[in-house]
Amino acid sequence: MGRLHREGGLKPMDAEQLRECAHKMVDFISDYYKNIENFPVLSQVQPGYLRELLPDSAPTHPESFQDVLNDVQAKILPGVTHWQSPDYFAYFPSNSSVAGFLGEMLSAGINMVGFSWITSPAATELEMIVLDWLAKALKLPDEFLSIGPGGGVIQGTASEAVLVVLLAARDKVLRKVGKDAIGKLVVYSSDQTHSALQKACQIGGIHPENHRVLKTDPSTEYALSPESFCEAISHDIASGLIPFFFCATVGTTSSTAVDPLLALGEITKSNGMWFHVDAAYAGSACICPEFRHYIDGVKEADSFNMNAHKWLLTNFDCSALWVKDRSALIQSLSTNPEFLKNKASQGNMVVDYKDWQIPLGRRFRSLKLWMVLRLYGLENLQAYIRNHIELAKMFEELVKQDPRFEVAAPRKFSLVCLRLLPPQNNEDCANKLNHDLLESVNSTGKIFISHTVLSSKYVLRFAVGAPLTEERHIVAAWKVLQEEASALLRIL
Amino acid sequence: MGRLHREGGLKPMDAEQLRECAHKMVDFISDYYKNIENFPVLSQVQPGYLRELLPDSAPTHPESFQDVLNDVQAKILPGVTHWQSPDYFAYFPSNSSVAGFLGEMLSAGINMVGFSWITSPAATELEMIVLDWLAKALKLPDEFLSIGPGGGVIQGTASEAVLVVLLAARDKVLRKVGKDAIGKLVVYSSDQTHSALQKACQIGGIHPENHRVLKTDPSTEYALSPESFCEAISHDIASGLIPFFFCATVGTTSSTAVDPLLALGEITKSNGMWFHVDAAYAGSACICPEFRHYIDGVKEADSFNMNAHKWLLTNFDCSALWVKDRSALIQSLSTNPEFLKNKASQGNMVVDYKDWQIPLGRRFRSLKLWMVLRLYGLENLQAYIRNHIELAKMFEELVKQDPRFEVAAPRKFSLVCLRLLPPQNNEDCANKLNHDLLESVNSTGKIFISHTVLSSKYVLRFAVGAPLTEERHIVAAWKVLQEEASALLRIL
Repeated sequence: MGRLHREGGLKPMDAEQLRECAHKMVDFISDYYKNIENFPVLSQVQPGYLRELLPDSAPTHPESFQDVLNDVQAKILPGVTHWQSPDYFAYFPSNSSVAGFLGEMLSAGINMVGFSWITSPAATELEMIVLDWLAKALKLPDEFLSIGPGGGVIQGTASEAVLVVLLAARDKVLRKVGKDAIGKLVVYSSDQTHSALQKACQIGGIHPENHRVLKTDPSTEYALSPESFCEAISHDIASGLIPFFFCATVGTTSSTAVDPLLALGEITKSNGMWFHVDAAYAGSACICPEFRHYIDGVKEADSFNMNAHKWLLTNFDCSALWVKDRSALIQSLSTNPEFLKNKASQGNMVVDYKDWQIPLGRRFRSLKLWMVLRLYGLENLQAYIRNHIELAKMFEELVKQDPRFEVAAPRKFSLVCLRLLPPQNNEDCANKLNHDLLESVNSTGKIFISHTVLSSKYVLRFAVGAPLTEERHIVAAWKVLQEEASALLRIL
Repeated sequence: MGRLHREGGLKPMDAEQLRECAHKMVDFISDYYKNIENFPVLSQVQPGYLRELLPDSAPTHPESFQDVLNDVQAKILPGVTHWQSPDYFAYFPSNSSVAGFLGEMLSAGINMVGFSWITSPAATELEMIVLDWLAKALKLPDEFLSIGPGGGVIQGTASEAVLVVLLAARDKVLRKVGKDAIGKLVVYSSDQTHSALQKACQIGGIHPENHRVLKTDPSTEYALSPESFCEAISHDIASGLIPFFFCATVGTTSSTAVDPLLALGEITKSNGMWFHVDAAYAGSACICPEFRHYIDGVKEADSFNMNAHKWLLTNFDCSALWVKDRSALIQSLSTNPEFLKNKASQGNMVVDYKDWQIPLGRRFRSLKLWMVLRLYGLENLQAYIRNHIELAKMFEELVKQDPRFEVAAPRKFSLVCLRLLPPQNNEDCANKLNHDLLESVNSTGKIFISHTVLSSKYVLRFAVGAPLTEERHIVAAWKVLQEEASALLRIL
């Protein structure tokens, strides 16, 4: 395989050169998956490792594709943390799949920039259709479907999803009370809500002292209590402030807690607030009838978000957001420069997704979600989710059988929170012990797990959800945890 | 090729199934490029066309890959506007290339989520290195390199780039004057600046009446005059307002005007303002020594942005942003939740790009830029840019030779602005005439061009820059324009 610069000048998009190189890349990537268990899951390189290995400026003349592939193997892959490894149990999963990968390839091949309908009608229309499909699979209320004043849109991440709805809500209330009242607007969430909300507040200019971070505890399994929500709102109204936005979570990052949507939603409604539901991780599980009840109450929500790129086999990025009133989004995010005007847009005949998101340009991301839904079908996707939850249950049982450990929060989906108990119930050293356990487990390279803090306790998070994970990986992972725990306890 | 669901249950990431299907997809995409000239460039479908063709819910059972590919061919491609067609001359280009495509494939294959260094050190470090390479190729000041307090980062789009620096600048000044002064902050730009700045102001809560959109005209070739900038600032200061952000453009969207960076930059500096340079399109040309002078004065800038995904053969999305003071970005955009804490981050040993951007998650986008720079080399990339500029010059000459047309703004890079002159110099009908010409040209499906308005005149934009465009396409495009113009003039 030679240089891409052949006789007769550069041919940057020659179909036959593309065919030749891309076939080679397919084999490279397939081999990567075949051998993925051989890599340390968490990259073991030191900060700055790559600068030692690469030149400090771009080459003047072309290099060969084989040279680049060799460098990927020798220099890049050692610095990769392998999210697709079956031994990856950190954070939440970020699924790759054959179907998702094929969709990404096709999207990169067509390489259109779908900001307006006209720039590729198929991109906008497939997105509307596929998000309707997914909304129906999740049994979302009809108001979230694209046939009415609402609809779905693919955002890059849940952070962008919560940001755009926060902006829509902010501007909706400021249109009523005047923009100088921004310092009076209050946002509510629990202390388990993802930091994406805090970031959205920072971006949108909500004063940090007006973000109510309401405390949760084990008595509600870290779910927000409607009573404390109500109290906080009353207190703020009495102080002359304006409650305008609430973000509930179904499946919190730390422990997959589920806020009671129905009760909380009714409170937001009676106070005229925007109610956003973040189900970034756990939303995928709600395609199974037996888990759907976790989003009962979503009918009260103004917006709902789940990440198909987490646990629904759709390669990153694909964060599905539905809103009941798309005009609120559009009023906040639209601009209408002359150079983008066209008959379809000016005639209000179409959706222009540029006005539903932060960036102008957008990729053809619906292709991968469409391929996932078609190539697997809903029944298989449900089985896929159920299998992970069964594996997590199995892991939970293993933890329970070892008296040195405790399950640190109730397991609802595929995340198990666990903790190594300190010897002689000495809680003073418990956090350090678990921190050390995390470090030693992850340094083995055999598995990768992450942590959180719940009620001041340092807790290990074991999240099942990589597409290649099987029972044997769970068993082996537990063995690693046990062995590292034994080693730590020995030297105490 | 059968269903992905085989005997023995779903295998969503089976290496051999991936190999089989992805080889087939490579051939599909290569054939697409082989036949790309046979499609209408601008999709000719009607709004809502796709809903007629697809079922209204996701399938319960898996479908075959061949069925999906057949649908892509029969139902999706007719709704695609072919940005990679050699006959695409609308907006600005959005380059695809063999190298860029390979990088996208690899990124989708690894499918990691690189929010923090630890989540894949190679993703963060390659991005720092490759943006240093590109900064050097552009001869950006050393303060933009990652060795000091500055550095580069890949954003999705220029919209996100201007937003994050606007937020950094906003918070920097609000830390001094207090956050209740947000209503006094003033942003400056010319009337040629991209609408992304207006959107950033809306998001960041800058009052719309405090966005000074300074008029330009043909006397400066639509560049902003330092005098009017100075005047506006003085006037605002006298009114008790606080000038804090200025966005200059190198290569405006409407006509590729170039704001005089040096003079404007000195004014921002003496007024303590943040100076952002948006060279989204024309930045790529500045890797050629003969065009580098257009960004002379960038040394005054606090931030500089160019889109490698526009005209530098890197598949969408890859918007390169450099800042001199990364701590300003980080102060605005960082959050530090417990569940993301890790030794490398807490020890300040690494860059965590999550704090340089809006979303949390991020793809491995540096791979494609790295592949483009290595597989083509700077000399070929320069030749690639020069070739497009030569083709644009050729087109400009063709326009000049036809007395029915005029070149409507000076050509600097690869965009030609042109206008069909109205018969009998009747300016009243000139705008409608050119609007009708645009519609009729684009309805042929033979080429796709776009438009703008300059000094109240409706102007056609002909932007050369697709990787497959050759001289013969320019000649044929001009013939289409001439023929449609003749037809229109006949019926007047």
